[in-house]
Amino acid sequence: MDLFANPLLTDLYQLNMMQSYLEHGMTGTAVFEFFCRKLPPRRNFLMAAGLAQVVEFLEAVRFSAADLDWLRGTGRFSADFLRYLEGFRFTGDADAMAEGTVFFPDEPLLRIIAPLPQAQFMETRLINLMQLQTVVASKAARMVLAAPRRTLIDFGLRRAHGAEAGLLAARAAYIAGFAGTATVLAGRMFGIPIFGTMAHAFIQAHDDEALAFERFARSRPDNLVLLIDTYDTEAGARKVVALAPRLKAAGIVLRGVRLDSGDLASHARAVRAILDAGGLAEVKIFASGGLDEDRLATFTANAVPIDGFGIGTSLVTSEDAPALDCAYKLQEYAGIPRRKRSEGKATWPGRKQVFRRYADDGTLVSDILTAEGDVQTGEPLLAPVVRAGCRVAPLPTLDAIRAHAAAQLDRLPPALRRLGGGATCPVQVAPALRALADAADRHTGIGTAGPA
Amino acid sequence: MDLFANPLLTDLYQLNMMQSYLEHGMTGTAVFEFFCRKLPPRRNFLMAAGLAQVVEFLEAVRFSAADLDWLRGTGRFSADFLRYLEGFRFTGDADAMAEGTVFFPDEPLLRIIAPLPQAQFMETRLINLMQLQTVVASKAARMVLAAPRRTLIDFGLRRAHGAEAGLLAARAAYIAGFAGTATVLAGRMFGIPIFGTMAHAFIQAHDDEALAFERFARSRPDNLVLLIDTYDTEAGARKVVALAPRLKAAGIVLRGVRLDSGDLASHARAVRAILDAGGLAEVKIFASGGLDEDRLATFTANAVPIDGFGIGTSLVTSEDAPALDCAYKLQEYAGIPRRKRSEGKATWPGRKQVFRRYADDGTLVSDILTAEGDVQTGEPLLAPVVRAGCRVAPLPTLDAIRAHAAAQLDRLPPALRRLGGGATCPVQVAPALRALADAADRHTGIGTAGPA
Repeated sequence: MDLFANPLLTDLYQLNMMQSYLEHGMTGTAVFEFFCRKLPPRRNFLMAAGLAQVVEFLEAVRFSAADLDWLRGTGRFSADFLRYLEGFRFTGDADAMAEGTVFFPDEPLLRIIAPLPQAQFMETRLINLMQLQTVVASKAARMVLAAPRRTLIDFGLRRAHGAEAGLLAARAAYIAGFAGTATVLAGRMFGIPIFGTMAHAFIQAHDDEALAFERFARSRPDNLVLLIDTYDTEAGARKVVALAPRLKAAGIVLRGVRLDSGDLASHARAVRAILDAGGLAEVKIFASGGLDEDRLATFTANAVPIDGFGIGTSLVTSEDAPALDCAYKLQEYAGIPRRKRSEGKATWPGRKQVFRRYADDGTLVSDILTAEGDVQTGEPLLAPVVRAGCRVAPLPTLDAIRAHAAAQLDRLPPALRRLGGGATCPVQVAPALRALADAADRHTGIGTAGPA
Repeated sequence: MDLFANPLLTDLYQLNMMQSYLEHGMTGTAVFEFFCRKLPPRRNFLMAAGLAQVVEFLEAVRFSAADLDWLRGTGRFSADFLRYLEGFRFTGDADAMAEGTVFFPDEPLLRIIAPLPQAQFMETRLINLMQLQTVVASKAARMVLAAPRRTLIDFGLRRAHGAEAGLLAARAAYIAGFAGTATVLAGRMFGIPIFGTMAHAFIQAHDDEALAFERFARSRPDNLVLLIDTYDTEAGARKVVALAPRLKAAGIVLRGVRLDSGDLASHARAVRAILDAGGLAEVKIFASGGLDEDRLATFTANAVPIDGFGIGTSLVTSEDAPALDCAYKLQEYAGIPRRKRSEGKATWPGRKQVFRRYADDGTLVSDILTAEGDVQTGEPLLAPVVRAGCRVAPLPTLDAIRAHAAAQLDRLPPALRRLGGGATCPVQVAPALRALADAADRHTGIGTAGPA
């Protein structure tokens, strides 16, 4: 069963609510926005990602005959509702920030405008797709900032939460500036460069480590990287030096060695010295094993001679903050701005736009959150993506998204580039939006206040 | 593209190593085992899950003509290797702990015995499937222990890391004792009971909260649960009391109300009093919103009148420990036990078995980790699952797995049931396994020591 656009990949309550909306003629235009309420600990910004998959989902989602048979068999749904689902298509609009854009709390990344049952239905999969890639791109961006001029590779499929997480994490990491991934299918699906070396099992399956190196080199001469820490890292490096003349004679270029255990900094220094003394100054050192942005920053600060990193678990699970406090909320229905006023979860109502202001040198200074249509100075961040169910233009290529993300990181002020957290971009709420919130509260007969 | 058994859902290095193994005739029998090196912080045990999907993967994985064309197009692989992949099937054996079994560090959950290229290839997807479900089942088990006699429902699809994570997390949580899930497709795929109420958007789309309640009740009279916190929780409860006679007259049974914000304990007490005073003592209170096992334990300790919980983010991402320090390691090749000796990552070599010992009252006392074939007293935990590529018996039903998991939790000693961590089960290493490790080290010419 192809999961990607499966319409049953939803919460039961969406179907419950849709049936009730339809029974009561509530098919007016609804406006929902997806945003984050607050930054995770130690994050100064987030990076939007996942829009391409959302657009593909909006265009592709259909209920098949088998889906409808199964729903009918549950006995939960009316014949009228099942007939409606048979012809279900997304016919609405979407506006969004470009993937790779840096954003802050309360700023909408994505707005859906559609008949209420359609817009309601999109919630589950839309959050599922946007949250994962946004959380991973945001984590990856921290690693990119922590290791300038180093090659970062996603090694995370094994520890990713299932197949789709592995694939989309590879995509999100590439957007944020990783050089590629070990995941073959991510290469095939998204055109991301793929990288691979060798595992300890290859060494262990041989009785002799040097023989394992030589066999692997002769079988896989392209982009050759040998894993040297299975038994003794420095001894492994010396075996590489001893092997090098034979490889050279065979026309095989040794590109690098990989360390995966122990004190990576001290091993890297020792290995660098052994390689340099052995005439292998051009051979690069790659490291992997439990790395995160803090360890990368320490290596950078100490000028540890490691040229590239393979990063898995901490990246693909966003280990210190695996989820965002994000929501997809109704902001307007039937022309009237709405907002939830639940304690600690109140939201700004209505259709919104974000304007971003920069200093003369291009550094990000502040954002203005306002009602759509209220023109402010600065660069508007949300733009039309889907109209009447179809994309308004081809989606940008992954490399274009990646270039945009790199430009976004370049424009971050120094305080926001630091790993420690605690800094953020001032997001000012424009008077037009405050007025809209007052109007929404008067409509529901409840006193006025901004989000908690 | 159906992802589930897609053979390109792998790390590039697996394919690199396979080609090299084949070129050098290294197709002897390899033994790999999957285990966890240590418990995450605050965990006293883990619960095995994911085996069914691994068995399905082992039986189903094939390289299609399109996969092979794409691999050929990369220019990375030899014609001989691509021909080998064309006929690639898993022809080996698997032994495993039953899903739902509690386990501890260094204990193998799963062993694969197959020709080296096959056994090597399985690593990526096997870890990807086993880790996710094991991490979620282990987290869910803590919630089950923290909230005895309460109904726990998985609400996590939106914050799960992609589609497969949402589906498999629903399965893992159900194994560990959750009553069901909100994810419709998990109901269809696995037969898990599905639950759903209503969202704030439904209330907000109406101008009047009481009207929204009544409309929803008339459209969705089965298992009716009304969400009462959109504007003011206690006011919402009073509206429910006012509505109740009309629902009763219409033959509609109000099953419960849901709270999703604010101080859930104090709201629950106030709402309980309002409902009881209004003659609705039988109406249950459900709560959701940022819950984890610690909050459940506090509610339990304080006898807060909440009957059931919807739990999302903390469950499906295992938010405080989203990954396990787990590995799939070569333990034997061509009849010779092997082990990795990398610093801090050394492993016990060879084929292993775990024997579990219980006190007279059935409480788990200790485990013995030993070499396969060394008979110890106690219950052996690993059993044959796949032989020559096919399952040896039908896989257990999900409800049988769930019953096994419940029995496992019942047998945990009090120290291991506590949420705080710091306790664990003593895992003794039998002399037979120590002797095997010595032999493996002598074979690779390196001094003797146990794993760090």
